[in-house]
Amino acid sequence: MPAAIIAIIPFMRIATLTIVGVGLIGGSIGLAARRRGAAERIRGVGWRQTTLDQALAMGAIDEGFLDLERAVKAADVTVFCTPVDRIVEQIHVAARHCSPGALLTDAGSTKAVIVRSVEGRLPEGVAFVGAHPLAGSEKRGPEYADANLFQGRLTVLTKTAHTAPAALERALAFWQALGSRVRVMSPEEHDRALALTSHLPHLMASALAGGLPSELFDLTATGFRDTTRVAAGDPALWAAIFSQNQSAVLHALGTLDERLHRFRAALETGDQATLLNLLDQAKKVRDALGN
Amino acid sequence: MPAAIIAIIPFMRIATLTIVGVGLIGGSIGLAARRRGAAERIRGVGWRQTTLDQALAMGAIDEGFLDLERAVKAADVTVFCTPVDRIVEQIHVAARHCSPGALLTDAGSTKAVIVRSVEGRLPEGVAFVGAHPLAGSEKRGPEYADANLFQGRLTVLTKTAHTAPAALERALAFWQALGSRVRVMSPEEHDRALALTSHLPHLMASALAGGLPSELFDLTATGFRDTTRVAAGDPALWAAIFSQNQSAVLHALGTLDERLHRFRAALETGDQATLLNLLDQAKKVRDALGN
Repeated sequence: MPAAIIAIIPFMRIATLTIVGVGLIGGSIGLAARRRGAAERIRGVGWRQTTLDQALAMGAIDEGFLDLERAVKAADVTVFCTPVDRIVEQIHVAARHCSPGALLTDAGSTKAVIVRSVEGRLPEGVAFVGAHPLAGSEKRGPEYADANLFQGRLTVLTKTAHTAPAALERALAFWQALGSRVRVMSPEEHDRALALTSHLPHLMASALAGGLPSELFDLTATGFRDTTRVAAGDPALWAAIFSQNQSAVLHALGTLDERLHRFRAALETGDQATLLNLLDQAKKVRDALGN
Repeated sequence: MPAAIIAIIPFMRIATLTIVGVGLIGGSIGLAARRRGAAERIRGVGWRQTTLDQALAMGAIDEGFLDLERAVKAADVTVFCTPVDRIVEQIHVAARHCSPGALLTDAGSTKAVIVRSVEGRLPEGVAFVGAHPLAGSEKRGPEYADANLFQGRLTVLTKTAHTAPAALERALAFWQALGSRVRVMSPEEHDRALALTSHLPHLMASALAGGLPSELFDLTATGFRDTTRVAAGDPALWAAIFSQNQSAVLHALGTLDERLHRFRAALETGDQATLLNLLDQAKKVRDALGN
């Protein structure tokens, strides 16, 4: 479906784009929109003036606002790049102050709770389409923003029975204008998938890192560092993601447990064939993913 | 202790160095020894002429041998960079053919089985000191060799009641001459530590990668790729490592299980404080490790 939609959408140029949260993701959206000429004016909303000043100095935004209500007035598109447990409340505040015809979208790592809490509850003429660009890192702050962050990366957009087709098309054009590929899924399908591809790996990395005694720090090499890199992510952000995606994460953890039990059984019994088979299966997947 | 030893050892220059297995690690030893002037002649032993030709073309070795027995004749130092389940047998073959005064060392990822199977069983005048340079990657082959692979990285040397002090000093000088820092541990201490810092992360990465259905490949981002990178390692090499370090790996898996259960319980009960605490502990460790 998305491919068909892409073909008929003309290039999007936004008069005023408002970015709520100008950290790594929000700052990258600003830089990408500017570099690609996707927006005429870029507003940024932050909670600290120093962050706004940084984003301004980098050219990620044209104007900084400490006040969400003022920043969304007359914005054509507003994108929320704040922690997942803040997005719903901010969308509702913004929706009361933005102009008819405004499109709201977000960059939250979970989708079902957010979409469910927003859809069907917005003022007439204001539309929301949930989004999740699969890009970023364990770093935070506008200093890590990158105009090419979304280049060729996938952004998931959510579609439900309530999603207005015109709003979905605009959201699609917006995220494509930043350089990303787009895939449309239901919020629940997104959350189940990301539980396996992102939330479970984070949990595993945290369990591995958290279990390392300090006297062994010196005995880690690139393997341990790669495997646990995401565990440097912000604990509050990730606690909120886990809570919002609780059931899918627990289910993913269950399937991992099963696989770990197969490894354990093969190790305990010295079953080299099964061990080799498990390792071989994993290598095939990892090789298929590329670097 | 090592610091005191380091201080009294003069720079080591080896007349003939033989490297058994000229892949990523063996090739890097050759390149490092040449770049640093640590050896006059470097011999490589391989099982395929093409690999030897590659190592020769890169300047990692001066002479290639398909025959281990010939290659270790008159070698002052021989280093085994072959899979951990091949090293013991190769050491015993080499020991029968090398000259009195020869030092044998290795680069195997496990130590207890190897050291136990070698120490006290070598001909008079031939010494073995187990080693494990904590460097490398999931890649294989001399094309990935790097003269700076060991630069500033840690190499663990093993010491037991059987280890001759003079042999330990020579092994120490050899691994330092390649650029690495050195730490001396018992083989068992090494294996327990590496179970946590390397073998368990590999097992986890493999369990994560192996459990990913192909329809979700497109929904992975850098987090999944980092977390599972090591799972691209050679299955046979890793099956051998797991088998040789079976009990320590099983014990490490047990401690990880406990930590996963704490995550699970916190998620199930919505205990945000515990979840935050677990994530925070992990972040502190990961931050301390650096990039």
